[in-house]
Amino acid sequence: MQFPSTVSKWSVFEVSLKGTETGNPYLDVELSGRFSQGNRVVTVPGFYDGDGTYKVRFMPDNEGAWRFETVSSDGALDGKTGDFSVGPADAGNHGPVRVAHRYHFAHEDGTPYFPLGTTCYAWTHQPLDEQEKTLETLRQTKFNKMRMCVFPKDYPYNHNEPLHDVYLPKANGEGQDCDRPNFEAFRHFENQVKALGDMGIQADIIIFHPYDRWGYCMMSEAQDFRYLKYLVARLAAHHNVWWSLANEYDFLIDVKPMQRWDRFFHIIEENDPYRHPKSIHNGDPDANYDHRKPWVDHVCIQNWDVKRTVEWRDDFGKPVVNDEPEYEGNLVQSWGSITAEELVHRFWITVMRGGYAGHGETYVQPDDRLWWAKGGVLHGESYKRIGFLLDLIKEDVTTGLTPLGATPFGFPWNRVSGAGDENVTYVYFGEHQPVIWSSGFPQEDGDYEIDIIDTWNMTVTPAKKVPAPVPHPTRHGSVVRGGVADAAFGVELPGKPYLAVRVRPRGRKSA
Amino acid sequence: MQFPSTVSKWSVFEVSLKGTETGNPYLDVELSGRFSQGNRVVTVPGFYDGDGTYKVRFMPDNEGAWRFETVSSDGALDGKTGDFSVGPADAGNHGPVRVAHRYHFAHEDGTPYFPLGTTCYAWTHQPLDEQEKTLETLRQTKFNKMRMCVFPKDYPYNHNEPLHDVYLPKANGEGQDCDRPNFEAFRHFENQVKALGDMGIQADIIIFHPYDRWGYCMMSEAQDFRYLKYLVARLAAHHNVWWSLANEYDFLIDVKPMQRWDRFFHIIEENDPYRHPKSIHNGDPDANYDHRKPWVDHVCIQNWDVKRTVEWRDDFGKPVVNDEPEYEGNLVQSWGSITAEELVHRFWITVMRGGYAGHGETYVQPDDRLWWAKGGVLHGESYKRIGFLLDLIKEDVTTGLTPLGATPFGFPWNRVSGAGDENVTYVYFGEHQPVIWSSGFPQEDGDYEIDIIDTWNMTVTPAKKVPAPVPHPTRHGSVVRGGVADAAFGVELPGKPYLAVRVRPRGRKSA
Repeated sequence: MQFPSTVSKWSVFEVSLKGTETGNPYLDVELSGRFSQGNRVVTVPGFYDGDGTYKVRFMPDNEGAWRFETVSSDGALDGKTGDFSVGPADAGNHGPVRVAHRYHFAHEDGTPYFPLGTTCYAWTHQPLDEQEKTLETLRQTKFNKMRMCVFPKDYPYNHNEPLHDVYLPKANGEGQDCDRPNFEAFRHFENQVKALGDMGIQADIIIFHPYDRWGYCMMSEAQDFRYLKYLVARLAAHHNVWWSLANEYDFLIDVKPMQRWDRFFHIIEENDPYRHPKSIHNGDPDANYDHRKPWVDHVCIQNWDVKRTVEWRDDFGKPVVNDEPEYEGNLVQSWGSITAEELVHRFWITVMRGGYAGHGETYVQPDDRLWWAKGGVLHGESYKRIGFLLDLIKEDVTTGLTPLGATPFGFPWNRVSGAGDENVTYVYFGEHQPVIWSSGFPQEDGDYEIDIIDTWNMTVTPAKKVPAPVPHPTRHGSVVRGGVADAAFGVELPGKPYLAVRVRPRGRKSA
Repeated sequence: MQFPSTVSKWSVFEVSLKGTETGNPYLDVELSGRFSQGNRVVTVPGFYDGDGTYKVRFMPDNEGAWRFETVSSDGALDGKTGDFSVGPADAGNHGPVRVAHRYHFAHEDGTPYFPLGTTCYAWTHQPLDEQEKTLETLRQTKFNKMRMCVFPKDYPYNHNEPLHDVYLPKANGEGQDCDRPNFEAFRHFENQVKALGDMGIQADIIIFHPYDRWGYCMMSEAQDFRYLKYLVARLAAHHNVWWSLANEYDFLIDVKPMQRWDRFFHIIEENDPYRHPKSIHNGDPDANYDHRKPWVDHVCIQNWDVKRTVEWRDDFGKPVVNDEPEYEGNLVQSWGSITAEELVHRFWITVMRGGYAGHGETYVQPDDRLWWAKGGVLHGESYKRIGFLLDLIKEDVTTGLTPLGATPFGFPWNRVSGAGDENVTYVYFGEHQPVIWSSGFPQEDGDYEIDIIDTWNMTVTPAKKVPAPVPHPTRHGSVVRGGVADAAFGVELPGKPYLAVRVRPRGRKSA
């Protein structure tokens, strides 16, 4: 048995044990660890890692002395105990992300987390030098979440052979035996999850997907359940894990009925003591999973119609992450051909209606090395502006943005977008170009900093405060509408598209 | 009695009679005309025009000899007869517009009519030189429909006094007596309807609206019904009339319940023998009138979310005219602040999903002379591009555009827009910028003209035909998607936004 005597909070503590190699330990051997501090016990599944090696991984969430004991159907693995101590978290490790304030997220240490991520579905299945390039590119962006598939991808622009098969070959040589994991494949995948974690990037792990020539998506129910438990046992101790049950689950509904998807959520709940965020992604915009189900943490959707973000918040009562509002690119496929301007616009609309969004880049490349699938390098223009947006909200938002305007979401917020937090109010105009504005601004006058944000040119310019416009009243009979200013003051605007306004009380506490 | 001995088909034949001046003839005197050819009889209401003058107007729809006879509660007006002859229609008069091919429109002579109109709600209530300017501006545009209110408008940017009161002052001097029309006001209004008709522009007459300081929208039910019948009696003989029961009817629902709106439709049906197109316009995007009701001819809506056009076609089964997809301008009001680019984009999306749209322009003017309300001159950029779009479809479309893709409206047509008619197929990409395309193109190869349309720069450029892309198949188990080209050929595109492609068989019959 091997294990370290000390480990940092929210990092991976790993016990390595030797046990049986006979039979198929993946199928046959049960193993778990009981980790305790005083009367508190956390039970985690262990897993087989090949060559008679078994592992139990644990992510401690509290400093001090911990003790563990193993429980196994294999006598050689059962009843092993050990003591270790947990020190302070490493710099930059804020602990796993949880839903916070109903519609938002925060790390376990309370640091707000605003998911503005990107997508490289099959990046861990590319040649190693390409994977290095992906990590290097990520270092130059602000993205803080990565959508990535456990299984390789067979799809347009995804024809190449994966770095590793996920299972070992069948004895008869005809395809892979989905009862025999290729441990090297899983080790590589989790190393890349860790690499992202070290960079502060959440790994949004896509567990199933329909784009497959190897038979992975055709596994039996028992194989699906076993794979899922195995994946959770291996990965859950990484602080930066998110569980995405599928990409486009509805394109798999013919082979995996709804009950199986529900059960997948339960299996994660049974095996992940850290309660990493979990959700599931749809293909058809009209086929959202019922995110009201209690085991779903946040709403993950694919939908280009981003002005509906408030509707999704209201429908499901959970944080909304629009993980595919179409991609910047120029493909023949319409999900991958919008302009950089349009994707930035959709990010702003989404965030300024209280949601979050995901990036992808799909410019035609002669060698099919599209960022959205394979990582590598970025060619586009939207990622810089998305980083600018993230920097802005990190500067001022402490809880999370609440859309302006009540439910049902009336005028003008069904047309322009606006949101606020304790110390900041934003209005994003997008395709609108008013030359004066006041709706959503504070009702009480005071000492405010008011800035005009050019979302495309990434500039912030002090704005001129002016009296709020007083509209001419509209009336019929006893009904009089308008005729009073809707805020304590207004702002002059230059009358061009893709602008936002930010209003902050001067002398506020910084985020 | 006065009437002309001859008149052109689809023009106004008017009989003028002298009758009683005592009492209130507007309330008391019933008058109608029975116009006949052989056994065919068309009955039309007459109306009082002040100073003891009564009129009966008729729009003949057939050449040859006609006869009329009046019927009245006033003996002096009753039983008058006359003969007249109807000659060929004047050049450019194609007869009234009707719904054609379920989702489209055509004039009575079969000429297709594609409503791409504009809005000058209160233009007939402005000073006369301003009204002249409006007509002059219209001559320089291609707009073929005008939304305009019978009553003047009290609203932001609409503070000035109208040219005429619609009713005469009350005897006590306190406001207007809605039982006593100001005949001069109606004469002026109908003259401007005629002026538009002479230019080939449909007058989309807005009968009620909520923006009122004179009490017009607070008339009693009996006054509403009488006014409506009077309006129809005066105006229906103009070939270019459309009936729009309201602008933003739902903002009047507190004083005019739904049953009254339904009854308004019935009153028009009872009094308009020519069956001019009739509909009703909503304020709140979620408050569409139920356009499935059988007395509604076409769907008139206000909605900025124009990719839903196919949904509205499907919901109501009638032509869709989006009469307020927001306006080009820079107002503080968000319905009036979108860029020219965005309005042109929304027109293309709407038309390329089988609908029609309306223009308005709302740039801040120092003297509040906004085109959308008062007419005058245009300052914007969208109207030229809308004219370009209308010219394009008039060149090739004979029936009306049918959206590509079946119901429910799946990929890629939920993202990009495409439509076809007998001899033409268009795909409009908008915010999408693919570098190759084939979806929606003909299944059979042949001799086609393929052009790239730059919708903003108004250019048409021959395109390079290339083999249709053959997508990599996607599969799981027995399900294989893709792997075959979806059309006989494709086209190369320059990879920029706001483009469309047009495909036409060479040697086709022109529209």
